[in-house]
Amino acid sequence: MLARLRPPQLIALTFALTILVGTALLLLPVSLEPGQRLSVIQALFMATSAVCVTGLGVVDVGTTFTPFGEVVMLLLIQVGGLGLITLGTLFALALRRRVGITDRIQVAQQVSALELGGVVRLVRTIVLSSVLVELAGTMLLAAVFVPQEGLGRGLYYALFHAVSAFNNAGFSLYATGLTGFVTNPLINVVIPLLIVLGGMGFLVQLNVLAHLRNRRRNRLNSNSKLSLTMMGALLLIGTVGFALLEWNNPATLGTLPLGERLLAAWFQGVTPRTAGFNTLDYSVMGYGTLFLTILLMFIGANPGSTGGGIKTTTFYVMMASAWGMVRGSSDTTLFRRRINTTTILRATTVGLLSLGLVNLGFLLLLLLNTNKDILFVQLFFETISAFATVGLSMNTTPLLNTGQEAVLIVLMFLGRIGPLTFAVAFSRPDSRTLVRYPAEHDILIG
Amino acid sequence: MLARLRPPQLIALTFALTILVGTALLLLPVSLEPGQRLSVIQALFMATSAVCVTGLGVVDVGTTFTPFGEVVMLLLIQVGGLGLITLGTLFALALRRRVGITDRIQVAQQVSALELGGVVRLVRTIVLSSVLVELAGTMLLAAVFVPQEGLGRGLYYALFHAVSAFNNAGFSLYATGLTGFVTNPLINVVIPLLIVLGGMGFLVQLNVLAHLRNRRRNRLNSNSKLSLTMMGALLLIGTVGFALLEWNNPATLGTLPLGERLLAAWFQGVTPRTAGFNTLDYSVMGYGTLFLTILLMFIGANPGSTGGGIKTTTFYVMMASAWGMVRGSSDTTLFRRRINTTTILRATTVGLLSLGLVNLGFLLLLLLNTNKDILFVQLFFETISAFATVGLSMNTTPLLNTGQEAVLIVLMFLGRIGPLTFAVAFSRPDSRTLVRYPAEHDILIG
Ligand SMILES: [K+]
Ligand SMILES: [K+]
Repeated sequence: MLARLRPPQLIALTFALTILVGTALLLLPVSLEPGQRLSVIQALFMATSAVCVTGLGVVDVGTTFTPFGEVVMLLLIQVGGLGLITLGTLFALALRRRVGITDRIQVAQQVSALELGGVVRLVRTIVLSSVLVELAGTMLLAAVFVPQEGLGRGLYYALFHAVSAFNNAGFSLYATGLTGFVTNPLINVVIPLLIVLGGMGFLVQLNVLAHLRNRRRNRLNSNSKLSLTMMGALLLIGTVGFALLEWNNPATLGTLPLGERLLAAWFQGVTPRTAGFNTLDYSVMGYGTLFLTILLMFIGANPGSTGGGIKTTTFYVMMASAWGMVRGSSDTTLFRRRINTTTILRATTVGLLSLGLVNLGFLLLLLLNTNKDILFVQLFFETISAFATVGLSMNTTPLLNTGQEAVLIVLMFLGRIGPLTFAVAFSRPDSRTLVRYPAEHDILIG
Repeated sequence: MLARLRPPQLIALTFALTILVGTALLLLPVSLEPGQRLSVIQALFMATSAVCVTGLGVVDVGTTFTPFGEVVMLLLIQVGGLGLITLGTLFALALRRRVGITDRIQVAQQVSALELGGVVRLVRTIVLSSVLVELAGTMLLAAVFVPQEGLGRGLYYALFHAVSAFNNAGFSLYATGLTGFVTNPLINVVIPLLIVLGGMGFLVQLNVLAHLRNRRRNRLNSNSKLSLTMMGALLLIGTVGFALLEWNNPATLGTLPLGERLLAAWFQGVTPRTAGFNTLDYSVMGYGTLFLTILLMFIGANPGSTGGGIKTTTFYVMMASAWGMVRGSSDTTLFRRRINTTTILRATTVGLLSLGLVNLGFLLLLLLNTNKDILFVQLFFETISAFATVGLSMNTTPLLNTGQEAVLIVLMFLGRIGPLTFAVAFSRPDSRTLVRYPAEHDILIG
């Protein structure tokens, strides 16, 4: 029966099963600290948030779960994150295999190392490189957490936050996230570095590494160039935008010394790449900052990474095609290459489906709302954060009712596997329509 | 010099000039009631709002302007509304002229009456039919306003509100809009009827009239069928949605008797078709109602009408193409006709540009905000209302500062001429790119 499922269905099923196993494990008495209780929907929420590397929490991880429960969360994050990278990479390679003969030669050069070894070798490479980066991150973070928490606990904290950062999960063992470390230089360097590496995309990393080894033989391909440019631009916009908008807000940057203001702006500029860690409190930020963060979260990270959102490349292709249409040019070009119409339609479809999903989810959150203290902006922020699997919150998540929790679970799940799944569905041969109707010319637009 | 301008530039220039003339007229002492003052930006705002048939006001029309000033507003509304219908229709006919020979015969049948007589006859038909509808509306509304305001004043009020309704402008001579008439049956029938007729689209009306005269010879074309279906669906969703969401809100429907609850739900269900009239206060409605209204306003009315928004057909084509992609079908079909790729790309481009504009405008309104009492949701509602030229407001408009007024002026102007202008630009021959680059295959999406 499993063999008859199409790839998108298989992906959805795998994620769903992992989440269900996680839910069951989190409900075990051994997972919960004495006196703590967790409803089934709360456990489902936490497991979904972990597997989808979102980071939103209806309960606080550190105080609710025993070390066993915390390790369950850590494993769910790791499985979810690695699963995403692997599936994203396999999907990209499968797409490349379907391209024309002339392009195949060029593409084959770039990924030959991978295609020769096959899927098993690919997965091994992904797992090994991820674990290596996470261990390096752990060592560096230990320098912060060991002095503060003691050796054993400090190493454990370092590991948890390194894994959580690299997988763009954003879960913390501290109830207030990383707000206690707003001025810590090491945290402000290592965590963003892990976030950026995790959100870069595996094929991009591979291409960059090969390029660094031999610049002439291994050129940066279009996907890498676009992904890196977009990520750089979004990091810059995030950091500069946050600094400008919050510079004089006494509840955030306003009271910090100059150097630490810049550090905090940088951290909060990086985290909308769907990381979800924060060193400042989002519930006291200005409306402008919140909406800028919403836009950055929705765009998200690079494809084939642990990050979420509609993806930087999707956003670029949509914008480029719209701009091309306005200028009246027949082709949308990128680095002197034409982007084919299927790619453009796929990008706009991912964008439109995401918008539809987000609007529907937000409407449901508003309709289900029973807490009069929750503001419109809080639920808007929460919706985008869940869909783009970011995990930032204006401290709204614990205030939600069961119905709203269910909506967020669906948003996290569809936001995580959705655009990817749909994109996989798009790559199927599209000749299933038996009747082709004559063209229609007189539908008026705009 | 004028002859060298391309159509989109000509449209933008015509609208801008009309607005500037209107601004100058509104600034004349003879336009203002004794003791009333109007800054240049305020006059520009009111003129833009009138010409773009939006209906947002930084000042109250009835108390600020003399009858002379009010007539200036009325003429700006009439010129703006008729200009839109005429330009939209001409544009549609120009597009049709470019279709293939086989389609030409079919299309020619539908619009032969118009094409024979040329542009002058078309404009005459549009003006005559609009004036006829407005006069009929005036007669009917006189039955409400004459008993209340006296004969002369009552007739004038009836004319003003009939013109304002048919052109989907939404300006009222009453400071609180039509909230005083929430239970008046005639207002609840005549005003929505005028709104729906104005927002239906001129070619649709023509096609429907011909169809009613001879059902066999004059079939409803695809554009009419789609426009009427979408309008019907949106009216239903608006009315039922409003009734369900506000049924027990004591500040809106909650205290009204059953019949009048339904009347009020119907009126507020019609007005998001970018009319802008309201019989209930939007500042006391639930978040869910407000967001549903925001979605309905953004979609807007039919193309080639006095209504705004991205247009019902644009929305349908976007959704249909996304749905087709998800199902893996190569063609997007409608009434057994294939929608061609250019139409789909045009629709998604109109949608994306509109989203980009709305997001940018909203961000600017938030950043410029200096009034701490204005909520996030108020500015969001105001942004969509301005862009879609609706004119509904949570009573926010008079609270805005000069910078925010300027943003709304630009939003109203671009929202009004923008998608239309861009669409005209799209219909140019798209063979201006001299170099065609090879296709690019490895951009990862979603
Ligand atoms: K996250
Ligand atoms: K209006």
